[in-house]
Amino acid sequence: MKLFTSVNDVTDINALVADALALKKDPYAHQHLGKNKTLGLVFLNPSLRTRMSTQKAALNLGMNVMVLNIDKEGWALELRDGVVMNGTTVEHIREAAAVMGQYLDIIGIRSFPGLKDREEDYTEAIFNKFVEFCGIPVVSLESATRHPLQSLADIVTITELKTKARPKVVLTWAPHIKPLPQAVPNSFAEWMCRAEVDFTIAHPAGYELCEDFTQGATITHNQDEALKDADFIYVKNWSAYEPYGQMPEVKDEWMLTNDRLKITNDAKVMHCLPVRRDLELSAEVLDGPHSIVVHEASNRVWAAQAVLKRILESL
Amino acid sequence: MKLFTSVNDVTDINALVADALALKKDPYAHQHLGKNKTLGLVFLNPSLRTRMSTQKAALNLGMNVMVLNIDKEGWALELRDGVVMNGTTVEHIREAAAVMGQYLDIIGIRSFPGLKDREEDYTEAIFNKFVEFCGIPVVSLESATRHPLQSLADIVTITELKTKARPKVVLTWAPHIKPLPQAVPNSFAEWMCRAEVDFTIAHPAGYELCEDFTQGATITHNQDEALKDADFIYVKNWSAYEPYGQMPEVKDEWMLTNDRLKITNDAKVMHCLPVRRDLELSAEVLDGPHSIVVHEASNRVWAAQAVLKRILESL
Amino acid sequence: MKLFTSVNDVTDINALVADALALKKDPYAHQHLGKNKTLGLVFLNPSLRTRMSTQKAALNLGMNVMVLNIDKEGWALELRDGVVMNGTTVEHIREAAAVMGQYLDIIGIRSFPGLKDREEDYTEAIFNKFVEFCGIPVVSLESATRHPLQSLADIVTITELKTKARPKVVLTWAPHIKPLPQAVPNSFAEWMCRAEVDFTIAHPAGYELCEDFTQGATITHNQDEALKDADFIYVKNWSAYEPYGQMPEVKDEWMLTNDRLKITNDAKVMHCLPVRRDLELSAEVLDGPHSIVVHEASNRVWAAQAVLKRILESL
Repeated sequence: MKLFTSVNDVTDINALVADALALKKDPYAHQHLGKNKTLGLVFLNPSLRTRMSTQKAALNLGMNVMVLNIDKEGWALELRDGVVMNGTTVEHIREAAAVMGQYLDIIGIRSFPGLKDREEDYTEAIFNKFVEFCGIPVVSLESATRHPLQSLADIVTITELKTKARPKVVLTWAPHIKPLPQAVPNSFAEWMCRAEVDFTIAHPAGYELCEDFTQGATITHNQDEALKDADFIYVKNWSAYEPYGQMPEVKDEWMLTNDRLKITNDAKVMHCLPVRRDLELSAEVLDGPHSIVVHEASNRVWAAQAVLKRILESL
Repeated sequence: MKLFTSVNDVTDINALVADALALKKDPYAHQHLGKNKTLGLVFLNPSLRTRMSTQKAALNLGMNVMVLNIDKEGWALELRDGVVMNGTTVEHIREAAAVMGQYLDIIGIRSFPGLKDREEDYTEAIFNKFVEFCGIPVVSLESATRHPLQSLADIVTITELKTKARPKVVLTWAPHIKPLPQAVPNSFAEWMCRAEVDFTIAHPAGYELCEDFTQGATITHNQDEALKDADFIYVKNWSAYEPYGQMPEVKDEWMLTNDRLKITNDAKVMHCLPVRRDLELSAEVLDGPHSIVVHEASNRVWAAQAVLKRILESL
Repeated sequence: MKLFTSVNDVTDINALVADALALKKDPYAHQHLGKNKTLGLVFLNPSLRTRMSTQKAALNLGMNVMVLNIDKEGWALELRDGVVMNGTTVEHIREAAAVMGQYLDIIGIRSFPGLKDREEDYTEAIFNKFVEFCGIPVVSLESATRHPLQSLADIVTITELKTKARPKVVLTWAPHIKPLPQAVPNSFAEWMCRAEVDFTIAHPAGYELCEDFTQGATITHNQDEALKDADFIYVKNWSAYEPYGQMPEVKDEWMLTNDRLKITNDAKVMHCLPVRRDLELSAEVLDGPHSIVVHEASNRVWAAQAVLKRILESL
């Protein structure tokens, strides 16, 4: 593996999930792979789970890790070609990425969408330029439209905890006070559409995701219908794809409560975190026996470690 | 040891001090203990000495270290239960601490007091929630009311440099231009009250510390009387406990000078640092032969290493 | 070697360059040297290349690394002696440096000039105080007037890529929109004046560098004359030395283009980076076959590793 930016970079999802679960049982068995290898984690946006879990995964593999917080203010990168750099940007992504590629063996990059220009966000302009110019293997730490390490951890979690061969998995929209990216739901959807699950997406009208990611899913505006007999519920807010980045008519009753869980098949509740309590998801669910959000977060380590291991093996 | 938040977590102070001094002589003898173990250092407030010395201590023990600066602005944590998180906080301490506990083996946390609500500060609300929710051993890197790694380094320093079995140790208030926490003097006092020293606290009227920490000390408003025959002088500013966080009538003449050292027993002068020169402590004392502040700071490594070693042994 | 702040700390440049090139071939042969040794990288100003390359160099040598971003706002250091610290500075450089010296084996420091007070900048007030008070070997990560790790990487690059015994090397001024330090050109000049090259400096009138650094170079205001038959061109902007920190009459035609390269001896083009495209240096040159800026940046690792190795050997 030379690139991990979406499910399309994975030839056999089941094998990768099995790898992650094997690493969970025996985390330190491959430290020779990472010896004298350096992972750079470049954050253009803040991170807690992704930073810690990916760093831990790399350490488990014997790698060195450098964390770089490249604030858009502090070290502003120029992304456009053909401009005279007489403004606020101090370095072009062409040089910055190429130089990082000289010092690192693998690079992880986080770059959120601006949520203003859909074309720019959905072509993954920033992310793809890093990939193009750095010249080394790249792992997405969440890009404008996808969060594949999260999705891999999610499918690892479902595989680990499912009690039937083909569980019903529901991605349900949740309220929020500000427009969030579609990266997590896009990514979760495109992984679930390829997984051995029955996959349903529930959201209010106006919150349709881009069809490139949801092909094959059952989509409904009726949350109750979706939740019925669900084995896993994935709760997440996102802003509209059309009109892009907007928040049409927020429906507070979309917040999941214990009462609503009754119609499920004793469902396990997931969320990628951070979660706003009693806005996105009720505190009673988060503190109750249905929540597996912390367990899900812990699996971020094994997802990242499975991916880094594959890349190290290919160096 | 599963927790290091105050002197009350230590069953035998002398044994812990002896451990620290043994580690000073042979720092790398226990690197097997830390192999594949990760220490997380979480700073809600800035740090220089604590960060570097604790990181060094962990490296000496063979551990990995992740440093997390969780600025209250950048990644604002919600601390209150039962609130709808529709404001500026992005994650609840329940989830944040629990997730960190999944990635780390030991966590060190720094959280200063607000100095506005004494009840909130003195119940250690933030700190105790981290301990409650993270589920792994916790080391205080300075909480609202205590700085136990500093105090342990202080008693290590006194033990190392004392020239009599029971030295006279004086904690003396010093001037400052803004209200500082009581954490360092509280903590120093509660350790000294249990140590084999004659312990006196000198401060202007109005700067009484909370009695929970000073039980057993001689307390006076007369600095000269306190300094007489002192073997060690611990200089520190703090704000009032009552009215909480205020600065009644700052007494500039409380700043220690060479002249005032004459009435001591050739006393050694300590300060936890950072120190404001010629405000808290005169430059002539800091640059003179009585000052042991840098030596004291160097002992922060061995204090931290002794504590981390005990915790690693109990994992 | 106990100090690396300028070319004057190097007794044999050729031997040091040879060391760097040997390390490039065999990076991990000296990991015993760095075992249980800690390098501290202290940044009073931002850094990308210097931070990453020096960290990588230290890891190659088996060292531990602590990175400290000491923002002048966040942890303001007092540099002046004899002042009452009742303002915004929280710690004096005397204590801060001395304490760091207790926790580290080698310290690297970056401190840019203020470009306001030439006397203060050119006496290296901040930098020299760190050296004086920390008590351990110091490596400059760029000071007010020099950037020796960059210059060493530059001479390594020239040595590696030259096709004749004594190449013609030209340092040429480039336009910019704001006043930059003279550290890089000063430093490059003083290394080149001691190297086995024909060295020419070209700049517009008013941009004369301090003669202490340029003694022995050919200096001209005619860029074309300088570029003629050049084998290496080092492009860099700097502000005036007199009147200090000013930008007299910016000449846009000083920007290097492919057309201008025709009069050179198929010259290789260097720049320390970051570079502003189509302002300092044309995009066509940067993206063309003459540019060696990324290769030059990659050599920062071996320059830093050669210096750290020498210092480790002397501990």
